[in-house]
Amino acid sequence: MSTARPVTPVRAGTVTRWAAETDVLVVGHGCAGAAAAFEAASAGAGVLVLERAGGPGGSSALSGGELYLGGGTEVQRACGFEDSPEEMYSYLRAALGPHADDEKLRLYCEESVAHFQWFVDRGLAFEPTLWDAPTWMPTTRDGLMWLGENAWPYNEIARPAPRGHRTATEAFGGWLVMEKLVAAAGEAGAVTHSDTLATALIVDDTGRVVGATARRHGEDLAYRARGGVVLTTGGFADNEEMLADHAPHLLAHGRVSDGLDDGSGIRMAAALGAATRRMGVVELALTALPALAVRGMLVNAHGQRFVNEDVYPGLFSVAAVLTQPAPYWVIVDEEGYEAVPERERWGVVPRFVSETLGELEGELGMPPGALDSSVGTYNTHAARGRDPYFHKDARWLRPLEGPFAAIDPRAGFHQGGRPSAGAGTGVAGFTLGGLRTTVDGAVLDVSGAVLPGLFAAGRAASGIHGEGYVSGTSLGDGTFFGRRAGVAAAAGLRSAS
Amino acid sequence: MSTARPVTPVRAGTVTRWAAETDVLVVGHGCAGAAAAFEAASAGAGVLVLERAGGPGGSSALSGGELYLGGGTEVQRACGFEDSPEEMYSYLRAALGPHADDEKLRLYCEESVAHFQWFVDRGLAFEPTLWDAPTWMPTTRDGLMWLGENAWPYNEIARPAPRGHRTATEAFGGWLVMEKLVAAAGEAGAVTHSDTLATALIVDDTGRVVGATARRHGEDLAYRARGGVVLTTGGFADNEEMLADHAPHLLAHGRVSDGLDDGSGIRMAAALGAATRRMGVVELALTALPALAVRGMLVNAHGQRFVNEDVYPGLFSVAAVLTQPAPYWVIVDEEGYEAVPERERWGVVPRFVSETLGELEGELGMPPGALDSSVGTYNTHAARGRDPYFHKDARWLRPLEGPFAAIDPRAGFHQGGRPSAGAGTGVAGFTLGGLRTTVDGAVLDVSGAVLPGLFAAGRAASGIHGEGYVSGTSLGDGTFFGRRAGVAAAAGLRSAS
Repeated sequence: MSTARPVTPVRAGTVTRWAAETDVLVVGHGCAGAAAAFEAASAGAGVLVLERAGGPGGSSALSGGELYLGGGTEVQRACGFEDSPEEMYSYLRAALGPHADDEKLRLYCEESVAHFQWFVDRGLAFEPTLWDAPTWMPTTRDGLMWLGENAWPYNEIARPAPRGHRTATEAFGGWLVMEKLVAAAGEAGAVTHSDTLATALIVDDTGRVVGATARRHGEDLAYRARGGVVLTTGGFADNEEMLADHAPHLLAHGRVSDGLDDGSGIRMAAALGAATRRMGVVELALTALPALAVRGMLVNAHGQRFVNEDVYPGLFSVAAVLTQPAPYWVIVDEEGYEAVPERERWGVVPRFVSETLGELEGELGMPPGALDSSVGTYNTHAARGRDPYFHKDARWLRPLEGPFAAIDPRAGFHQGGRPSAGAGTGVAGFTLGGLRTTVDGAVLDVSGAVLPGLFAAGRAASGIHGEGYVSGTSLGDGTFFGRRAGVAAAAGLRSAS
Repeated sequence: MSTARPVTPVRAGTVTRWAAETDVLVVGHGCAGAAAAFEAASAGAGVLVLERAGGPGGSSALSGGELYLGGGTEVQRACGFEDSPEEMYSYLRAALGPHADDEKLRLYCEESVAHFQWFVDRGLAFEPTLWDAPTWMPTTRDGLMWLGENAWPYNEIARPAPRGHRTATEAFGGWLVMEKLVAAAGEAGAVTHSDTLATALIVDDTGRVVGATARRHGEDLAYRARGGVVLTTGGFADNEEMLADHAPHLLAHGRVSDGLDDGSGIRMAAALGAATRRMGVVELALTALPALAVRGMLVNAHGQRFVNEDVYPGLFSVAAVLTQPAPYWVIVDEEGYEAVPERERWGVVPRFVSETLGELEGELGMPPGALDSSVGTYNTHAARGRDPYFHKDARWLRPLEGPFAAIDPRAGFHQGGRPSAGAGTGVAGFTLGGLRTTVDGAVLDVSGAVLPGLFAAGRAASGIHGEGYVSGTSLGDGTFFGRRAGVAAAAGLRSAS
């Protein structure tokens, strides 16, 4: 039996008292909600944002804060990289595909330089320097980082240019992004009701969405929205029942979220017949340190390599967890281990150290000869600067020599001093599927028609992702399409009245 | 923009003329529809079945006809196998999991012997003999076959017993199963309207489903159902837009269907706020001959093995397509090839034949040494009757010796003289996700509440499958839960009136 909170739509005619009326009602105050609120308010609409937590920020504020932007931003140019919307599109189509929403992806790339400027105009600063090595997160204030663009096969699909933009903080920067966006929304005139949990959508007799019910301080309230409701409630990483129904791969693992990604916006809209897209797609992060993996080998339970270790680390994570037998191991030699400065090793401790591979494979429970064969093959080719299996860049290729260490991602590591959500299984993730929307955030029903008065953005919607993911595309498409939804909802005010 | 046929629910009050009234309206005349129609009619209800094709049968009639049944059927006992519902449940939970609907799965196993008898009572005969080797489909009239129960790791999870029940035909038997079920439904009193495409559900003012609109011979009609509507429209393998939204892995490949699995039942119900489950899960079949694969090696593009070749062939297919770099190859030696009788080789022709592995890996575009290393490792262990990587049964282990052949699944093969749907990519499949239903077929909305008057079964619903699949579970759970939905809809007649 379902234990889900009911989200049955409420008929407007049954509402006896409106707690508040506004033009645009935004549900959820993460990055997409803040962007929508800012744009709607800037367009002159009255805006009210409902947030179930005690204050704004959501999962966005806890994120790394990377923004995937390109096409020739001033940071890219200052670091000496040429880029174009076409090259950005080619990369993302390959890295986020297959079968991403092409219209959204094209628009996102075409307007990326302008979207970068929008962040600058909101007060975010970006240092004109590049972090030039595989990592989950630089330990510096560098404003630019690679996110897989220079790794095979992507380096053959599009001209490589780094597009991970980072506001000037060390380690996690999501809080700073949200600080600026929330302030901007407030300055533009948006009002926030915190501790307010939206519970259902309100529809009039024509089927138009005209508000939402909510629970606030123990009271059941009805909020009226004259122009439209924008759902920016996030994904459903924290809803066990939705995960079991749609994305069970996350169930066993840690979650990258604020603990409140309950999928409620998706459910409220689906109760009205809204269409969803790619509800099973998840992003996963394996707590394997890219700087170590790239200098050695990432192998599965059989000691087999399965990916070039210099890809965007989310890609090697997904490849491991969704396609390879567990457990996974990072195999490095002493030279590789010592080449990574201790402050970047974030508390990583080798689980096993051994002079010989035969001894090590025994410790790891691999079949006899497994690791000997894998490392032997790797070394033979690496000695010639080649990786004919996975094409890791020659920069990282070197025969490995004993003593060897095996690092266990299940032991987790600390990012910026914070315990990783993946400690335990070594994996943490979040959901990418959501409501089917137009590029202006209008929610579509299963017949492909717009549900009047209803918008969505951020992880409550299916955005620019197909099966793949790259850091910075959540805050990136959440803000980009959040802005567009805010503009459209404010415009909807005129068409609705 | 969506090109989907609209499925917007119709209000009963707007219907000016009912083309027909019945107690139970069944939409789709495949195995689930026939089972539902038989039970509802047998319970005394008036039953009308709408079928969009020119006659009944659907994809079920084109299927192999395997029925996954066990727990101690008379065929199992005659072949000398002990079985119990508990052992059957343990196997299916592992093979169809993770996160299958446990309540459905338990019930399916507990009542499996009775469900077997139901087929016998409908006139299906089963020979008391076993086909005892890995295959997609026996070339004999044997009534029983293994479907992965005796392969690692399943042989350690549950006591192995074969549960693939086959009615007495050579090769494809779906047509015979459907011939009997359609006849039984008709004899029980169910009436069928063929060439009749259901287009939307009709709901009354309380939200109860009271019928469906349909298009028949160019006319738009409304059918009234006093007791309930049972959606048995099949999956969505033939709906490109739904595949792009939910199960894109199938897009590139062949489809196992009658070409009419358009997902319309899923969409009609979702338009009312029905919940779906596991819309991304697909079953895939690689056109690699199990009898050859088991005597050699199934390898990926890098020449790596990734599974024990004696598993249910759908499992090695899914493992290949969803987790391994393509193309895939079956590597056999002369002894292995000749051990398979020509009539079971179904037109398989080796793509490359070579005296040495070095030559063969060059032909296959593998890195130098790749196949030499894989076969060397395999042979070392096989000489001792062991497979420490994947635990293939010792019966199939033997060092491979040149000359070697590489067989390309993309070349396809012919099943029973019929061109395989997978010719081209070597892969064909169908969808397993669908509407969320109770064990009695009631469709649930996203809040977990029953949508009154609406039932679903077969591949329009999410059944006993988690991520996995085994042959015979489609006809198996389609008929089992189709029967229950028919009973419930007939009973709903009383509660509705």
